[in-house]
This record gives sequence, structure tokens and C-alpha cells, in this order.
Amino acid sequence: MSAPLVGRLAIIGAGLIGSSVARAVREKGLAGTVVVADRDAGVRARVRELGFADEVPETAAEAVADADIVIVCVPVGASGAVAAEIGPALKPGAILSDVGSVKAAVVEQMAPHVPAHAHLVPAHPVAGTEFSGPDAGFASLFENRWCIVTPVADADPAAVERLSVLWSGMGANVETMSPQHHDLVLAITSHLPHLIAYNIVGTAADLEQTLTSEVIKFSAGGFRDFTRIAASDPTMWRDVFLYNREAVLEMLGRFTEDLTALQRAIRYGDGQTLFDHFTRTRAIRRSIIEQGQETAAPDFGRHLVAAKK
Amino acid sequence: MSAPLVGRLAIIGAGLIGSSVARAVREKGLAGTVVVADRDAGVRARVRELGFADEVPETAAEAVADADIVIVCVPVGASGAVAAEIGPALKPGAILSDVGSVKAAVVEQMAPHVPAHAHLVPAHPVAGTEFSGPDAGFASLFENRWCIVTPVADADPAAVERLSVLWSGMGANVETMSPQHHDLVLAITSHLPHLIAYNIVGTAADLEQTLTSEVIKFSAGGFRDFTRIAASDPTMWRDVFLYNREAVLEMLGRFTEDLTALQRAIRYGDGQTLFDHFTRTRAIRRSIIEQGQETAAPDFGRHLVAAKK
Ligand SMILES: NC(=O)c1ccc[n+]([C@@H]2O[C@H](COP(=O)([O-])OP(=O)(O)OC[C@H]3O[C@@H](n4cnc5c(N)ncnc54)[C@H](OP(=O)(O)O)[C@@H]3O)[C@@H](O)[C@H]2O)c1
Ligand SMILES: NC(=O)c1ccc[n+]([C@@H]2O[C@H](COP(=O)([O-])OP(=O)(O)OC[C@H]3O[C@@H](n4cnc5c(N)ncnc54)[C@H](OP(=O)(O)O)[C@@H]3O)[C@@H](O)[C@H]2O)c1
Repeated sequence: MSAPLVGRLAIIGAGLIGSSVARAVREKGLAGTVVVADRDAGVRARVRELGFADEVPETAAEAVADADIVIVCVPVGASGAVAAEIGPALKPGAILSDVGSVKAAVVEQMAPHVPAHAHLVPAHPVAGTEFSGPDAGFASLFENRWCIVTPVADADPAAVERLSVLWSGMGANVETMSPQHHDLVLAITSHLPHLIAYNIVGTAADLEQTLTSEVIKFSAGGFRDFTRIAASDPTMWRDVFLYNREAVLEMLGRFTEDLTALQRAIRYGDGQTLFDHFTRTRAIRRSIIEQGQETAAPDFGRHLVAAKK
Repeated sequence: MSAPLVGRLAIIGAGLIGSSVARAVREKGLAGTVVVADRDAGVRARVRELGFADEVPETAAEAVADADIVIVCVPVGASGAVAAEIGPALKPGAILSDVGSVKAAVVEQMAPHVPAHAHLVPAHPVAGTEFSGPDAGFASLFENRWCIVTPVADADPAAVERLSVLWSGMGANVETMSPQHHDLVLAITSHLPHLIAYNIVGTAADLEQTLTSEVIKFSAGGFRDFTRIAASDPTMWRDVFLYNREAVLEMLGRFTEDLTALQRAIRYGDGQTLFDHFTRTRAIRRSIIEQGQETAAPDFGRHLVAAKK
């Protein structure tokens, strides 16, 4: 048997993403030892029960001592504090990475705490569900999904390569870009859609009470799809919007301008503008299907979740 | 064998919905004869090939002669012209119905063409996919979905009951409400979500070209769900917005106000407002799941479509 890719892997935060990384690494035999840390004693007990970690120490600093790669899996706003806690304990040559949905702000928070003898290599697996916690994770979450690695300016190429190989080993397709560019792309592909979904569900919740109950009853017409997106973890998403503010506000500004134009077309009965707009948007979906990101009869990759529950 | 529910059923328009009604009625043996009309000779030929109709006459007027129930399955904006064409050919006691996604405007368009000896009973099956045409339909489309019957003020109770039984026979759960109330409920559960989805996909299409191609590539983060909704038929949706203008503008106004509040919270870093909003919206999803409109690991009912393709 060949040696595993990583000797000792530490995961900080046993939520959906952290527990999925642990499960995937174990299933594929990518690390000799998987160490999982969580600030919550109840969660640590549950991790021991679920059995996807070799070691579950009491503190994050203990978890990272001797680790070759450390992956921080906490909400974006907590990454600075976690880095401050574990930075001093990182061994020479260790790679410190994360999975945050925002990258520039994470680099800003974590970089000051990384000792000169260790390497910061941030990353973001573009995969998830609306569920949270150690029970929600599963080994195949990253399979055939993107993982965007966002090296900092003076990144060590060998460290970037090593982290990329780890994510490939978990089944992900790895892509590299700058933290800033990542934040711009994700603002439109993920952050704005979530904001819009949260918003429309909120609007429905504020209707007169009988109307809201009918909205729930007849939700199948399109609204229901938004409620799934808007059921995602509030802490995670609060942090995404606080820490990717500029890019989100920029995209939101464009969205609102465009919506005003559609609103005007509806008000003045301008059917041609509506028809042209609704025709143009079909091309984008065709491209997504052509690129294999989706099939014509899709299930949002959720057969994985369904199979697992 | 007991006699079928309906002697002669005529369907005008062999698109997704019309062809699904024909297939469902045939599969369940709900009508003695299923007659399907379509204005397009190529579509009529295809209907004959697909074999879900007993008769495929050349004109809509021929199709409705002698029919006990007629279901018009065309875009909302075309329902007036179709009613004008078939109204004079309706036999005494015939029920004229439709499947339009908007109801008050359809009543307005169709009612003047219904002879005194026939009964107008509009309806809307809340079920569909983003595909169009006779090949897209399937018999199980309406199973366990709502069909909202919206009787006019002086409706004949027996006719309303008969149409309701037909939809129940196709597997739908039938609910009754006024056309105006239907339009208000659907404005928020279906029309506004579609408008928002069309809009965000349009915003993405207008980005700098390299950015748009990355949006397509990394669409899995939430955006992809919107592209499916925004791939729906442009003619159908143009008509929905033109013919449910008041209710859509009302709901859009509320949506925009709410979005402005979220935008402000992002701009000023007000994490508490964001967190509270994102927590509140989860309750709506819980209600939907509790009411059996969705499971926690959903596939949007699209296993039906997937199984069929
Ligand atoms: N969910 C997705 O769809 C998705 C996709 C890609 C990336 N991400 C990113 O993945 C990261 C984790 O998200 P998740 O979905 O795994 O969330 P989750 O299931 O809610 O887990 C969050 C984890 O972070 C820990 N944590 C929270 N606040 C902390 C703090 N102040 N200090 C230390 N630990 C803290 C939690 O500890 P407790 O056990 O005490 O709660 C838990 O272990 C986030 O940065 C998110 O942006 C999420
Ligand atoms: N799609 C959904 O999700 C959904 C759900 C519930 C209700 N609805 C409602 O169902 C109705 C039909 O939608 P669909 O999805 O079945 O659309 P579709 O697949 O595009 O079919 C539309 C049908 O209407 C015919 N048609 C179009 N314009 C016409 C005109 N001016 N005169 C006569 N016939 C005309 C078409 O004829 P050709 O064969 O010549 O094209 C075709 O047979 C609409 O009112 C829609 O609001 C749709």
C-alpha cells in the first residue's frame, strides 16, 4: 500500500463542510491521521460517536500541533479568531487552509496569524446543502464539484499544489484564481441568489396572515425553490454578506437597475421587452447544460443528499 | 366496465399542459373520446404520431363540436381569440375551461364568447416544467399537485363539480377560489419568483464577457437553480406579466422595499438585522415541509421528469 497523501490532517469545525472533508478524506484514504476539533463539547462527543475522526482533542491548538495540513471550516467571520488561536501551534512547513465562501476577507483575517514557517493557501469548495452540523456531512459532497483555490500573492507553489491534489483526491475539480476575483464571481453565482431568495421569502412571510398560509400551501409554483435556498444557515450567510460587501453591493445595484426596467415594461404593457428578455436568458441555461454543469432534467445534485438521508 | 366520466373531451393547444391533460385522461380512462386541436399542422402531425389523441381535427371549432368538456391550453393572451373561434360551436350544456396561469384576465377575455347554453369554469393546474410542446407532456404531471378552480360569479355548481372531479381523476388536489384571489396568491408564489429569476439571469448575461463565462462555469452555488426557472417559455411568461399586472406590481413593490432594507443592512454592516431576517425565513420552509408540499431532501418533483426523459 502506498503512503497516504497527507500524514496528519487537522480539521477545525465539525459542521457540514468540516465533517464532509473528514469523511471524504477517510473514505479515500488521503491522510494517515484525521484530527477533528470543535469548540463545542457536545459536538465533539457526537463526532466521536459518528466515528469519522481518528482523534478529537479538546482544543484547536492541540489539533493542529504536528499537522501537515490544517483546514479551518468555520463561518467566515470566525476565521481570524481561529487563526489567532492555532497560528502559534503550526509546525514548520504546515499548510493552513480554509473553506470559507468569501476569500479576500478571510486572507485579511488569517494572514497576520500565520507564522513565517507555515503556508497560507485559502480555498472554497463550491458545494453544500442547506443543512448544518456534523450529521449533515457526507463523503461524496465534493465529487465533481468545483473547489476554487485562491493563493495569496507570495504563495509557495508546492503548498498550493499539495492542497490542490488533496481536493482532487476528494473528487473535486480544482480551479485557481485570486481571492478578489473569486469574491466577484461568487457574488453573482451564489451570494446575490441567496440574498434574493432570503428576501422574497421574507416578503411572503410579511403578507397578511391568511395570504401567507396560502403561499405555503401553493408554494409549488416556483416559490418553493427559493425557500430551500433561504433555509441555509443564518450565521454563515450573515458573514458572507458582511465580508463580501463591496462585490455584493455592486451586483445588487445592477440587479436592481435591471429589475426596474422589467417593472417598467410590465407597468406600460411593453410585451416585446418582456419577451426579448425572457428569450435572452434561455441561452445562459443552454450554456450551463452544454458545459455539463447540469442536465436538462436536473435534480440540483441532490440525489446525493436524498440517497444519504 | 363503468362509463367514463366524460363522453367527449376536447383539448385546444397541444403544448406541455394540453398534451399532459390528454395523456392523463387517456391513462386514467376518464373520457370516451379525447379530441386534440392545434393551430400548427406540424404539431398536429406530431400529436398523431405520439398517439395520445383519438381524433386530431383540422380546426378548433371542429374539435369542440359535440364535446362535453373543452379545455383551452394556450397562452393567456390567446384565450380571447380562441374563445371567439370556438364559442359559437359549443353544444348546449358544454363546459368550457382553461389552464391559464392568470385567471381574472382570462375570464374577462373568454366570458363574452361563451353562449348562454354553455358553462365557463376556469381552472389552473399548479404544475409544470420549463419545457414546451407536445413531446414535453406526461401523464403524471398533475399527480398530487394542486388544481385551482376559479368559478365565475354566477357559475353553475354542477359544472364546477364536474370539472373538479375530472381534475381529481388526473390525480390533482382541487381547491376553489375566486379568479381575483387566485391572481394575488400566484403573484407571490409563482409570478414574482419567475420575474426575479429571469432578472438575475439577465443581470449575469450582461456582465463583462469573461465574467459571464465564469458565472456559467461556477453556477452550482445557487445561480443554477434560477436558470432553470428562467428557461421557461417566453410567450407564456410575457402573457402572465401583461395579464396579472396589478398583483405583480403590488408584490414587486413590497419585494423591492424589503430588498432595500437588506441592502442597507449590508452597506452599514448591520449583522443583527441580516441574522434576524435569515432566521425568520427558515420558519416558512419548515411549514412547507410540514404540510407535505416538500421533503427535507427535495428534488422539486422532478424525478418524474427525469424518469420520463
Ligand atoms: N454550507 C454551505 O453550503 C457551504 C459551502 C461552501 C463553503 N461553506 C463555508 O464553510 C464554512 C462552514 O460552513 P458549514 O456549512 O460547515 O457550517 P456549519 O455546519 O454551521 O458548521 C460551522 C462550524 O463552525 C464552528 N464555529 C462557528 N462559529 C465559530 C466560532 N466563532 N469559533 C469557532 N468555531 C466556530 C461551528 O462550531 P459548533 O459546533 O460549536 O457550532 C461548526 O463546527 C463557512 O465558512 C462557509 O462559508 C459553506
Ligand atoms: N408551463 C407551465 O409550467 C404551466 C403550468 C400551469 C399552467 N400553464 C398554462 O398553460 C397554458 C399553456 O402553456 P404550456 O406550458 O402548455 O405552453 P406550450 O407548451 O408552449 O403550448 C402552448 C400551446 O398554445 C398554442 N398557442 C400558442 N399561441 C396560440 C394562439 N395565438 N392561438 C392558438 N393557439 C396558440 C400552441 O400552439 P403551437 O403548437 O402552434 O405552438 C401550443 O399548443 C398557458 O396558459 C400557461 O399559462 C403553464
